[in-house]
Amino acid sequence: MLKKEQNDYLCQTGPGTPMGNLFRCYWMPALLSEELPENDCPPVRVKLLGERLLAFRDSEGKLGLIDEFCAHRGVSLWFGRNEDCGLRCPYHGWKYDVNGQCVDVPSEPAESGYAKKIKLKSYPLIDQGGVLWTYMGDPEKQPPLPEFEFSTVPLNQTFTTKRIQECNWLQAMEGGIDSSHVSFLHRGDLSNDPLFKGAAGNKYNMQDLSPVFEVVESDGGLLIGARRNAEDNQYYWRITPWVMPCYTGVPPRGDHPIHGHFWVPIDDESCWAWSYDYHPTRALTETEVAAMKDGKGVHVKYVPGTYRPLANKDNDYLMNRAAQKAGKTFSGIEGIGMQDASLQESMGPICDRTKENLVGTDNGIIMARHRLMRAARALADKGTVPPGVNPEHHKVRQAALLLPRDVQYKDGAKEALVARKGVRQTSV
Amino acid sequence: MLKKEQNDYLCQTGPGTPMGNLFRCYWMPALLSEELPENDCPPVRVKLLGERLLAFRDSEGKLGLIDEFCAHRGVSLWFGRNEDCGLRCPYHGWKYDVNGQCVDVPSEPAESGYAKKIKLKSYPLIDQGGVLWTYMGDPEKQPPLPEFEFSTVPLNQTFTTKRIQECNWLQAMEGGIDSSHVSFLHRGDLSNDPLFKGAAGNKYNMQDLSPVFEVVESDGGLLIGARRNAEDNQYYWRITPWVMPCYTGVPPRGDHPIHGHFWVPIDDESCWAWSYDYHPTRALTETEVAAMKDGKGVHVKYVPGTYRPLANKDNDYLMNRAAQKAGKTFSGIEGIGMQDASLQESMGPICDRTKENLVGTDNGIIMARHRLMRAARALADKGTVPPGVNPEHHKVRQAALLLPRDVQYKDGAKEALVARKGVRQTSV
Amino acid sequence: MLKKEQNDYLCQTGPGTPMGNLFRCYWMPALLSEELPENDCPPVRVKLLGERLLAFRDSEGKLGLIDEFCAHRGVSLWFGRNEDCGLRCPYHGWKYDVNGQCVDVPSEPAESGYAKKIKLKSYPLIDQGGVLWTYMGDPEKQPPLPEFEFSTVPLNQTFTTKRIQECNWLQAMEGGIDSSHVSFLHRGDLSNDPLFKGAAGNKYNMQDLSPVFEVVESDGGLLIGARRNAEDNQYYWRITPWVMPCYTGVPPRGDHPIHGHFWVPIDDESCWAWSYDYHPTRALTETEVAAMKDGKGVHVKYVPGTYRPLANKDNDYLMNRAAQKAGKTFSGIEGIGMQDASLQESMGPICDRTKENLVGTDNGIIMARHRLMRAARALADKGTVPPGVNPEHHKVRQAALLLPRDVQYKDGAKEALVARKGVRQTSV
Repeated sequence: MLKKEQNDYLCQTGPGTPMGNLFRCYWMPALLSEELPENDCPPVRVKLLGERLLAFRDSEGKLGLIDEFCAHRGVSLWFGRNEDCGLRCPYHGWKYDVNGQCVDVPSEPAESGYAKKIKLKSYPLIDQGGVLWTYMGDPEKQPPLPEFEFSTVPLNQTFTTKRIQECNWLQAMEGGIDSSHVSFLHRGDLSNDPLFKGAAGNKYNMQDLSPVFEVVESDGGLLIGARRNAEDNQYYWRITPWVMPCYTGVPPRGDHPIHGHFWVPIDDESCWAWSYDYHPTRALTETEVAAMKDGKGVHVKYVPGTYRPLANKDNDYLMNRAAQKAGKTFSGIEGIGMQDASLQESMGPICDRTKENLVGTDNGIIMARHRLMRAARALADKGTVPPGVNPEHHKVRQAALLLPRDVQYKDGAKEALVARKGVRQTSV
Repeated sequence: MLKKEQNDYLCQTGPGTPMGNLFRCYWMPALLSEELPENDCPPVRVKLLGERLLAFRDSEGKLGLIDEFCAHRGVSLWFGRNEDCGLRCPYHGWKYDVNGQCVDVPSEPAESGYAKKIKLKSYPLIDQGGVLWTYMGDPEKQPPLPEFEFSTVPLNQTFTTKRIQECNWLQAMEGGIDSSHVSFLHRGDLSNDPLFKGAAGNKYNMQDLSPVFEVVESDGGLLIGARRNAEDNQYYWRITPWVMPCYTGVPPRGDHPIHGHFWVPIDDESCWAWSYDYHPTRALTETEVAAMKDGKGVHVKYVPGTYRPLANKDNDYLMNRAAQKAGKTFSGIEGIGMQDASLQESMGPICDRTKENLVGTDNGIIMARHRLMRAARALADKGTVPPGVNPEHHKVRQAALLLPRDVQYKDGAKEALVARKGVRQTSV
Repeated sequence: MLKKEQNDYLCQTGPGTPMGNLFRCYWMPALLSEELPENDCPPVRVKLLGERLLAFRDSEGKLGLIDEFCAHRGVSLWFGRNEDCGLRCPYHGWKYDVNGQCVDVPSEPAESGYAKKIKLKSYPLIDQGGVLWTYMGDPEKQPPLPEFEFSTVPLNQTFTTKRIQECNWLQAMEGGIDSSHVSFLHRGDLSNDPLFKGAAGNKYNMQDLSPVFEVVESDGGLLIGARRNAEDNQYYWRITPWVMPCYTGVPPRGDHPIHGHFWVPIDDESCWAWSYDYHPTRALTETEVAAMKDGKGVHVKYVPGTYRPLANKDNDYLMNRAAQKAGKTFSGIEGIGMQDASLQESMGPICDRTKENLVGTDNGIIMARHRLMRAARALADKGTVPPGVNPEHHKVRQAALLLPRDVQYKDGAKEALVARKGVRQTSV
């Protein structure tokens, strides 16, 4: 349970807020690479942390993320012409490069130097792993590029999608570090979903509905271990890494690709749910990629032409009571991604955490909140660089394994929890 | 005319408001019985007096009206599984019975007794006359069950529907106690509507457009008598009972079933308009029920799959100017129910009563407002149980009759205004 | 750049605001004559300057613009019956004439004189040039009728439309006095639009993208001269008249009809963009009128049955990136009217002028704002009748002409800028 002030503190990420300042210390996914498919393609509107921005790719392939609005009279540059290494406002022809620098004001004599004085807010945009990443903080403090395994393996080993989620980022992210709900919400999918089914470990999810949680701090965030009973005096461990502020990894199943999420605030009442799938040591199969594109696993089907899920709150997520009654799905909603999103959105745009009743399985959530608040305060008070900024912190891996009951997972899974090039995931 | 503070006082019914506290003294219609058609059927979202609730019917047929949101982390239990005498949250499997008592928290050992400590807000829900009624007040002060005639006659003698009305409850209810508008707004329907036409008394409605109102207090609310001139030194009296806070009865016509309404706040900008039709001494005919289902009389046609009227403000209520011009309908809107609703909604979400100009025919409205304010204050100041709580107050009847001009209706219609088992309504 | 207080001052036009009081000094377009096509036709809802009004035409052809809501209990008179020289409220039959005077309250005895005491707010409505004009100010100070040329030439010489624009009036109007954007935003249309193309002067628009602005005060507002280089030691002048508060004229092209706009606030976040086309000395041709009806020139295509443009913000104005890339349109939006509207709406409901960077070509805008503020203050402080109220101020004309470089346009174009009966526009 949080006080209202604490909830506001964690949920608000607009310019000038403490959590907003924290988010602005990190590289974050901003767009899919496919959204800027070629040089001089149409610009794309992007809203992040409450800021309205425009992404574009210039004639030479350079990427830019700039203020959406022209410095002159404020029209949206989304209507702009992307030509000759710059985006030209269609109203009076002011032109900007990928850094937001104005390079032409046609009505002013070039020799006046007027254009040089005009510069839009801009953020770097880099292409890595099929994702365009941005950093929205102080340029002086820009950290090295991110090194999450999913975006640094070869492109044929990784597949990432995004979807709009119509609630605050925190309640979405809290779902991502809460592996205790799998045995309920997703139980039907453990035996049906092509990207989940068939793993030997699935049976422990189904058998033991009272996992015991052990959460430990990592350099970049947390490791959330969920322990379920297994045979032969063993425990079945599923370990979820959380890297601050909003990267989460779902523990793997068999040889299925590993998946997880980034939860990036659009504004205080919506966020981007990014979903990645990758395999550390092999290309994804055609069948796997087809399933992902079909909305299986952690991915979803879309309203055509958008990144909004086809099942959404306006259609009650296509609730199927018959499938629910028959136990085909636990909540009546189809697909793991929308099972999560439907419930998280049902909490309201911003979950009222003054009313919650947390239990042992929520320890990961409790500790994540505290770590976020602590980091935001240290940043505000002392300028401390928060955990998760250092790319070394990104090199974690989710794991699922059996360990003897007397072995602690931070010891027994130590190697399994590190991203190691050319080494397969540890997964039962 | 009201001051702004008075208007707010009467219109606001959320938790903690004076009028909200008044409403919470009464049994009120919450759902139609048909909405929970069988044991373990899907739960139904219900918003009343600004509170978001969930109704369900368990495996044994017990009815519950509980907080919509799980006590754990706040997801909507609408997605829940209704099974084994309880509603199970699909997120982590917490389970609640019809009283809101948590009966299972799977992640906690049963012996911990944790579940017992968790209880959702809940209200009783009882089935009477095709309607599920609730009482949202202090359990210690729960009054006896309601005894309105429409819901206590045999089921084949009564038929009730509900529709969403997109405005505050008070302006809807004020339409229900205002019988003077019949001669205008509904004049076309007096001769066309199968549930209104043919009554001998209709001609007085059409002939005398200046009814004189005599309003008297009853134990439970008001009796609003509208007097029109008739032949042979008689008056034609139409007497509308209002039982606090929001039950109104339309005076009957011939042997048609008697109808009337309940006006129940959803929140401050919308309400449920309940419409009942019953006959005290005979079954409704197939023709009558078919007409009601077809939206005739006080009932309406719906947007399929909803309780929203098909004619609504988004389509200008299917205004038909040709029918209006031809005098087929007075306002161009079809159907008595939507004729009322369209005008009441046109006043805005909450009518601004600081601008109104009331006349003699509004005496019923003036007195109802005063009685409501008086009762809310007495409740707030002294805890006085308000009129209309006692089921004896429910046993009223609307009446339409001819009386000699020198007879007062409270004397001449005394018996007619009482619900008497096995005795037909008094109706011309 | 404006301070926030200045921006609010200029943008807010509701009752009691300084700019609202200024607007209430003028006759303004309220409806198209076609909206009230015959006696006793349906009334029409009109919202202007934040006031909700109802226009109707009575049995004798008299026009009225009255409060939308009945004085009795506040229902919308849009549902009213227009009959026998008055509009009758469908609820209880109260009836109003075109002056808002209540002429019948059926429930009150006629001899009581009650109706006479009830009068709705009302404004005059006059039909001139296919437009119904209103004056919403103090009746004592009602100015003479407007004398804009477009609405005083014979009806076969003029054609006017209107469309809803979903932003504050000021940013729309500022587009109307900003002729510098033509060379960019509308460049494709100069050679394609049937109501623009073919004029000899168009080439100067295309060749010289750095027009020099010379703005001078006129009696009623401003003359905004844009000077572009031409051959033979001449300048090509395009001169835009602005008559306070919101009339603007587009400089003409060849013998095409002359066009321009009125920008009338609906409320603070939307306005009516009125578009006129007329020829001072000849009838419009069938081809021209057909093009206007087809949304060419300054006109637009509509969502059927409404005055909302078919291309609107809900469909991204039917953005056509291929046409933009090919240079067929500069911004990807089709049609001069929607090219303007799309960009102006993209500034947001109310443009944030604290962030703008104005240049020389914005001098007309800067001076218009100052003149508006000055007039509003003089009105507030001293009751000074503002410029543009006197019908003599309406008799201006836009002009496009070549002048020797050493001639000032206020001298060289002096006659061209005056509306003169039977004299053709000055246009290259």
